[in-house]
Amino acid sequence: MSDCTISPLQKARLSYAPKMPGILRGGKCAVSQGKVIMPPGNSIKIKEMFPKTYGKPLVTLCEGGGGSLGSSPLTVGVVLSGGPAPGGHNAIAGLFDALKAANPASRLVGFLNGPKGVMMNKSREITKELAAQYRNTGGFDMIGSGRDKIETAEELAACAKTAVETGLNALVIVGGDDSNTNAAILAEYCEAIKIAMRVIGLPKTIDGDMRNEYIEASFGFDTATRTYAKLVGNVCRDAMSSRKYYHFIKLMGRSASHVALEVALQTQPNMAIISEELQARKQTFSDVVDQIVDVICRRAASGKNYGVIVIPEGLLEFLDDFKSFLKELGLKLGEEESSLAALANEKERREHLHSKLSKDSAKVYRSLPVGVQEVLLRRDPHGNVVVSQIESEKAIIEYVTEKIEALAKEGKFKGKFAALGHFFGYEGRCGFPSNFDADYTYCLGYAGVQLIRAGLTGYTVSALNLAGPAEEWIFGGVPITSMLTLENRKGQWKPVIKKHLADLEGGPFKRFAAERDKWAIGDVYKFPGDIQFFGPSELTDARTLTLQLEAAAKKR
Amino acid sequence: MSDCTISPLQKARLSYAPKMPGILRGGKCAVSQGKVIMPPGNSIKIKEMFPKTYGKPLVTLCEGGGGSLGSSPLTVGVVLSGGPAPGGHNAIAGLFDALKAANPASRLVGFLNGPKGVMMNKSREITKELAAQYRNTGGFDMIGSGRDKIETAEELAACAKTAVETGLNALVIVGGDDSNTNAAILAEYCEAIKIAMRVIGLPKTIDGDMRNEYIEASFGFDTATRTYAKLVGNVCRDAMSSRKYYHFIKLMGRSASHVALEVALQTQPNMAIISEELQARKQTFSDVVDQIVDVICRRAASGKNYGVIVIPEGLLEFLDDFKSFLKELGLKLGEEESSLAALANEKERREHLHSKLSKDSAKVYRSLPVGVQEVLLRRDPHGNVVVSQIESEKAIIEYVTEKIEALAKEGKFKGKFAALGHFFGYEGRCGFPSNFDADYTYCLGYAGVQLIRAGLTGYTVSALNLAGPAEEWIFGGVPITSMLTLENRKGQWKPVIKKHLADLEGGPFKRFAAERDKWAIGDVYKFPGDIQFFGPSELTDARTLTLQLEAAAKKR
Repeated sequence: MSDCTISPLQKARLSYAPKMPGILRGGKCAVSQGKVIMPPGNSIKIKEMFPKTYGKPLVTLCEGGGGSLGSSPLTVGVVLSGGPAPGGHNAIAGLFDALKAANPASRLVGFLNGPKGVMMNKSREITKELAAQYRNTGGFDMIGSGRDKIETAEELAACAKTAVETGLNALVIVGGDDSNTNAAILAEYCEAIKIAMRVIGLPKTIDGDMRNEYIEASFGFDTATRTYAKLVGNVCRDAMSSRKYYHFIKLMGRSASHVALEVALQTQPNMAIISEELQARKQTFSDVVDQIVDVICRRAASGKNYGVIVIPEGLLEFLDDFKSFLKELGLKLGEEESSLAALANEKERREHLHSKLSKDSAKVYRSLPVGVQEVLLRRDPHGNVVVSQIESEKAIIEYVTEKIEALAKEGKFKGKFAALGHFFGYEGRCGFPSNFDADYTYCLGYAGVQLIRAGLTGYTVSALNLAGPAEEWIFGGVPITSMLTLENRKGQWKPVIKKHLADLEGGPFKRFAAERDKWAIGDVYKFPGDIQFFGPSELTDARTLTLQLEAAAKKR
Repeated sequence: MSDCTISPLQKARLSYAPKMPGILRGGKCAVSQGKVIMPPGNSIKIKEMFPKTYGKPLVTLCEGGGGSLGSSPLTVGVVLSGGPAPGGHNAIAGLFDALKAANPASRLVGFLNGPKGVMMNKSREITKELAAQYRNTGGFDMIGSGRDKIETAEELAACAKTAVETGLNALVIVGGDDSNTNAAILAEYCEAIKIAMRVIGLPKTIDGDMRNEYIEASFGFDTATRTYAKLVGNVCRDAMSSRKYYHFIKLMGRSASHVALEVALQTQPNMAIISEELQARKQTFSDVVDQIVDVICRRAASGKNYGVIVIPEGLLEFLDDFKSFLKELGLKLGEEESSLAALANEKERREHLHSKLSKDSAKVYRSLPVGVQEVLLRRDPHGNVVVSQIESEKAIIEYVTEKIEALAKEGKFKGKFAALGHFFGYEGRCGFPSNFDADYTYCLGYAGVQLIRAGLTGYTVSALNLAGPAEEWIFGGVPITSMLTLENRKGQWKPVIKKHLADLEGGPFKRFAAERDKWAIGDVYKFPGDIQFFGPSELTDARTLTLQLEAAAKKR
């Protein structure tokens, strides 16, 4: 029966021992304090919001005997927050092993299905046997995940109640920018009401946008981009084998274009759109369409009526015309909610909304395919416009097709054009973590315990030198308050960790910009293929080009 | 610069040496004749159509010194036909190596971009250096592929002209059912006009439908199903980690459900639809929707508002209501072509078409989402209804959602339901071939040369015992005429190789039927992960469950 429940690869991966720097092994290191850093924006306001946890120093793990909590037995909770990312189970394994290494009487408790598990005190004990079943596997299913926030007075009180009931010495929140912000709020709250629970964040997200000069990578980005790169590479090869279709591939990754950029560097498609570049150039939807049509025409002129174009998920929010349109749309959908609901059908609703929009926004709205217009009539449960549900790859195909047909009629396009749309997203969030992600997340968990043992709270585990071998990775902690900035959300100023966008002056974009002209017409596709877990280390322990090129740029 | 053009995996795979049975090594085996087999249908008519090549025996490769062409230097052509499948480049490498092993003066010529390359005599010489660049890689880009047929008198004459001009001793056609049928037609033609070109077919298609008791697998099926199974497994893990969505995943595979069945066996999703079963039960679209809704309700009752449902590409053609509807639709679109074209917009066209359909068909048409109704107004360049362009996964989601909402209103559904649609197809056709496909295709090419050396024509390479190790594989040839049956296409009786559909009495379906109830509610998802090329042989040299279960059923 065992062959019915577990695949050969899963079985093989269970016994993989993640690599880590020597300093972490044995789990008895100390922390050395570094400088105190300032938040990027209004530090006075942040200091007011976080009086207890503001102004703490950076710390680095070093040789030593443990900090204020030394080797006393600890009870630590862990919670997974937000979308899954490959490596979550190894973060838990790392926490578990580090706790047990320091003191076998320590316990790890996993809160179920995200932050609400903490608030409702629903958990499961992480035992040796349980951890063993999940080592080096993908997914967040060991304890589940959720998207609840820990922000309001009630939510914070509920967490504190759980902390006291469970006797938690610390809670580790595994998540992205919002979850780490919540970790800071909870840490501050616990200090203020004087309960002993420390709060530590681990940087997770396949989007690669939870990153700064102290945290070189969020976990999951490596595996997710390799998963997408395999698929994009395969589609490139299909395009050039069949010579029949243009493939428009949208890649998951929220606002920032890190995923699209990394996958483009790995596969060298004919074109990749980088939202941040369009924003810098104040470009519009129709500019994007023109750029694509230009490449298609140039390729047709060299007899190539096929190709691959990579599109980042966040594209529309960065376009000059869409940005103001989306803002106005959000407003109008609120104002017109009841009038829209009263209308008989979608057509009437579209027309009503159209009549209420400003001239510019009405033009953008009307220019969209009817299907997209209808999607935009609905808002999500939080009242937000559902930008992510716009199938932007299809909208682009529709416009490009129209333009190509017009050019053909004028005799200016003599090629053929047929397009297919793809969206690669969910299939990249729960794969077996690559060795990099397996090693990295295990180390993050391991390092998180060292911060706890040092008595720290309100820190995210930091990680440097990740482009090098695991032996040379440097872990420590960065005070979350030092990463906070203020953002107006629905009329309220809220502390947030600013999402890291693709840097047009950074190594990865510069390489892309230098290479892309060659990719457009010549077919210099690259085929990364499947993630390998055995074999030569250049296959099993590769680094993303993002990490490599950023490290190279730093050295210069 | 080399790191810009070739990935580490591609580099590593170039030096892989495909495994093959000892009998093929050295390339100097002979053929032994077996029995003469009859075509499955009207053998008299087939005999009339193929007087020269009808009634030939099965052959098996055996020890010996080569046949009528012995070790004389040969010039052989190869052409790739139809959609790409992983392993095509290795088939070419196998042909090349076998030719050179028998006589270093032999030549292999690759015709470019499919059958039209043969007709137009456009080719490139396959040299040692060229072959070396493509060994064990995915795609058909070494010489390209195409979908042209070789059927008409002009097309056959053009091929014969090329054969004479190039001095071809043989042509190898790599393709599926239609391409192998074309091989038979061309073989007969060459015999009839007495030119010396032999024609041999190799069984290719990721769909797994070019298969019978002499050919256990079409190449590419192994890699494609592993590629999809990785993705489906990842999505299963995502569903159970996020506990938020139902994923409806359509898988490529044309009419037959082999791909869906194999992927389901590899991943154990909550539900997989097998078209052949629905056809046997004469079920309709609404039956399918009911079955899905039933599983969703039962899962909701156990607190699970997420899941994964696998849908075969060919589903709609097997549904009782759709079959007659599609037939009538094809007819009406022809009859009404000009009236439809004269109308002002899609809405009017939809209404016009609706008014012309019979009551039953009109009901099916009207029941479809508007978007689908509009897709169905257009026909492909060959005048066929574009069934494959119906996003059946989306149509199913729409109907399931409607039904769940109705049940919720009646208080009969208290869960939550949110759905996402996926289509996995093109990303599976051009991946690096798995070891199985790399070995199998290399052997197919190698064996193809042995048939040529034995002077045979009108044969497809046969392959038995594929579930065992490569050492035990048995190759030979099956006369294509013995696989032919007659099918009425547009009023003409044409010889075709009948597509092999999923067998409801076969090992794979029986295992699926025995297991699926467990999969529906319990989450016994299985995660196959990436294809591995290094490491333990249970990872690198696995066989599809289809092959394993069919072999097991044969033994019983």
